[in-house]
Amino acid sequence: MSRQSNRTTDSKKMNSELFTLTYGALVTQLCKDYENDEEVNKQLDKMGYNIGVRLIEDFLARSSIGRCQDFRETADVIAKVAFKMYLGVTPSVTNWSPAGDEFSLILENNPLVDFVELPDNHSTLIYSNLLCGVLRGALEMVQMAVDVRFVQDTLRGDNVTEIRMKFIKRIEENLPAGDE
Amino acid sequence: MSRQSNRTTDSKKMNSELFTLTYGALVTQLCKDYENDEEVNKQLDKMGYNIGVRLIEDFLARSSIGRCQDFRETADVIAKVAFKMYLGVTPSVTNWSPAGDEFSLILENNPLVDFVELPDNHSTLIYSNLLCGVLRGALEMVQMAVDVRFVQDTLRGDNVTEIRMKFIKRIEENLPAGDE
Repeated sequence: MSRQSNRTTDSKKMNSELFTLTYGALVTQLCKDYENDEEVNKQLDKMGYNIGVRLIEDFLARSSIGRCQDFRETADVIAKVAFKMYLGVTPSVTNWSPAGDEFSLILENNPLVDFVELPDNHSTLIYSNLLCGVLRGALEMVQMAVDVRFVQDTLRGDNVTEIRMKFIKRIEENLPAGDE
Repeated sequence: MSRQSNRTTDSKKMNSELFTLTYGALVTQLCKDYENDEEVNKQLDKMGYNIGVRLIEDFLARSSIGRCQDFRETADVIAKVAFKMYLGVTPSVTNWSPAGDEFSLILENNPLVDFVELPDNHSTLIYSNLLCGVLRGALEMVQMAVDVRFVQDTLRGDNVTEIRMKFIKRIEENLPAGDE
């Protein structure tokens, strides 16, 4: 599905529940389509990536945020602006590596899993893995190669949901999608 | 995926773009999975139905709305409360049949199609058909059998998107999901 050129940045604020249930339908469909959890996880990451490379433009237009000075600023923008904007929650930014190239987003409350329990036969499913792909894709469009993965998940019995983000490198050859 | 019992009615307001793009990923996946548009339309309606039968409980809890007096009141609640809550838009209610058993929801702006153009080879795809299923499923849980279908769609070049809803019958044997 290709993008229309005439969309606006009108804000349509909505509650998250229809999104949450629709996301559940997507994951359920992928579980039917693919042989094992690992394939579903990969597919969710890939779909998320494709979403992220498109969402970044909307994000830059809507937030009026320019280039971040460093990875710490990037982390704050992701947590306080992007998560708030698109998921309605604000994760905390913690567990910085000494080199400042890795941090964690801690979600007390992950709206994607509001109605969900993992069935026993999907114990290795990374249910919300779409989010990792979205972050990876969006950051790539602003010239940052970042590794993104879940290290804790309330769905698997952890107390919180933790997304670990590791800066890999600056991508020099691409122009950011928002610079027009 | 089954429902957790401990969810709350905390409101998490979010912008619609991540939902819109995720819905696009779902439709794209179904277009890969099924042979033709008709099958995809059916599948979207079915998924929507399953979402609607679960969403109604959240809706009743969140809106504190009781039993509607008649189909006109139902129409207003759907347009002004439910659409506003879960999609951030308020369709207008028009084109009542003389008998008062049919009306149309007119959406000037359908958030599901914000980034979308239908490819030529999917000219019979009812892209937003999930919504029909959601409405059908939710209304069934409050004892109303209703026929729901798209009759106009901006994606197909119409000026507005129009969902036609026709009351079929009162379902006597079921208790509403919200009565606990």
